[in-house]
Amino acid sequence: MTNTEAPPRTPLRALLEALPGLDRNGDLPYYAQIKERLRAPIQAGRWPEGTLLPTEAQLQVYFGVSRTTVRQALADLEAEGYIVRHPGRGTFVASPQRVADRRPRRLVGFLETLRARGVDVQSEVRGVRTVRASSRVAASLALPLGSPVTEIRHRSLVHGQPIAVSRTYLVCAGDLDAEDIRRKGALLTSLREHWDRVHREPFRHARRVTTATLARPEEAQLLQVDPGSALVLVRLHVNSDRRPVVYLQALYRADRYEYEEFLEA
Amino acid sequence: MTNTEAPPRTPLRALLEALPGLDRNGDLPYYAQIKERLRAPIQAGRWPEGTLLPTEAQLQVYFGVSRTTVRQALADLEAEGYIVRHPGRGTFVASPQRVADRRPRRLVGFLETLRARGVDVQSEVRGVRTVRASSRVAASLALPLGSPVTEIRHRSLVHGQPIAVSRTYLVCAGDLDAEDIRRKGALLTSLREHWDRVHREPFRHARRVTTATLARPEEAQLLQVDPGSALVLVRLHVNSDRRPVVYLQALYRADRYEYEEFLEA
Repeated sequence: MTNTEAPPRTPLRALLEALPGLDRNGDLPYYAQIKERLRAPIQAGRWPEGTLLPTEAQLQVYFGVSRTTVRQALADLEAEGYIVRHPGRGTFVASPQRVADRRPRRLVGFLETLRARGVDVQSEVRGVRTVRASSRVAASLALPLGSPVTEIRHRSLVHGQPIAVSRTYLVCAGDLDAEDIRRKGALLTSLREHWDRVHREPFRHARRVTTATLARPEEAQLLQVDPGSALVLVRLHVNSDRRPVVYLQALYRADRYEYEEFLEA
Repeated sequence: MTNTEAPPRTPLRALLEALPGLDRNGDLPYYAQIKERLRAPIQAGRWPEGTLLPTEAQLQVYFGVSRTTVRQALADLEAEGYIVRHPGRGTFVASPQRVADRRPRRLVGFLETLRARGVDVQSEVRGVRTVRASSRVAASLALPLGSPVTEIRHRSLVHGQPIAVSRTYLVCAGDLDAEDIRRKGALLTSLREHWDRVHREPFRHARRVTTATLARPEEAQLLQVDPGSALVLVRLHVNSDRRPVVYLQALYRADRYEYEEFLEA
């Protein structure tokens, strides 16, 4: 079989043909009906995680509606976490239990990007205190072992369910307003503003390292998983022009979190 | 303390001052001596993973050698996996047991990028066969459930130790030369060449999804870890212009593998 002789493949037709058409006399607006029709096979598991959905144009033609109507339905499904979209590449089924972390290649917080997508997230600052830098923290912040550093403990929830816990360490943060951090919650954003305002030394770049680990009892309890469950471990090293300023270690529930990237071939 | 009054911090001086100077009458070339002096505290654990090393310029001044000499030492340490370097951001200690995966934002294979850095890697194709697509594979490749697909099982080793196992699924690969794939080993590269040559339908883009999981007995045996150990789970969906063509699922030993990115603030 050569490429030029191959018939055009329509692997998506099967997906579309299983969908009931719209009820033109129903009470529900068309966008809500389309949303329901797409959501049902996802919820039922017939379109598993990773399934490529028809394009906006295909859905528009199939349902006989405007592009705006299709877009509204897809935007809602994305905000609710059923699908993930990447312009020019397609729309994919995301398992509803899972949260896709699709961050730009800039230093931005996980919760901020989720919020911007309309996802229901909560940010809990669980404690702010001064501790002595461990070997790892000292090395990351280029400080002598045992130096005093500020530690912020944090938990993130999505749709009311815990998804991540983190510990953030900062150099020289005696001037940090713990109550302000606690109130604002969204951690990286607050710290960035603080650093800009107080030190006039903005965050410049960061190194992000991702691997896996097992939940220890304390983390398991906070994340509501069994000890020994798989977690995604992310270490973030943030630098200003002159020095390391923040070291953050976050643990994500592997059954709810995945890190997603789009690559050019 | 305001920024303008802050004395210049020299957190790296402490690292340098602990290093013996060069033996100007010794048998070892300067670059090899510098390499030894930097490697010793890493191997001894005095500079833990993530420690920021002095710059090339600082090392050049401190040891009184040319920039070329310093570069040779750092290049060797990087190839051996002791340090990781990112131009403009600095050089960091990598735990010698760990392999940092620093891929460009393009679709390239893990082994290829390691080889390009001079790391000793082995690629073992463990089997090529036709199987029926599971629900996940069928959805990823936009095929009906149970369609025949080609499965390639693979294991990667770094410095002779297993680091990853993977299963790769391809659509329509009856024309695949299993012996050729087996011989070439470096999986994504071989498949890409194959697709280009046979189908004239090059890989265009991919979606890469990373999370964590626990080792099952068969995987644990291949990876030489205990069942239940933490693994990094990567799913890769590769598309041509017209359709999904490859679905790959890889499991990396979390104690040896980490995915590293550099972000602008």
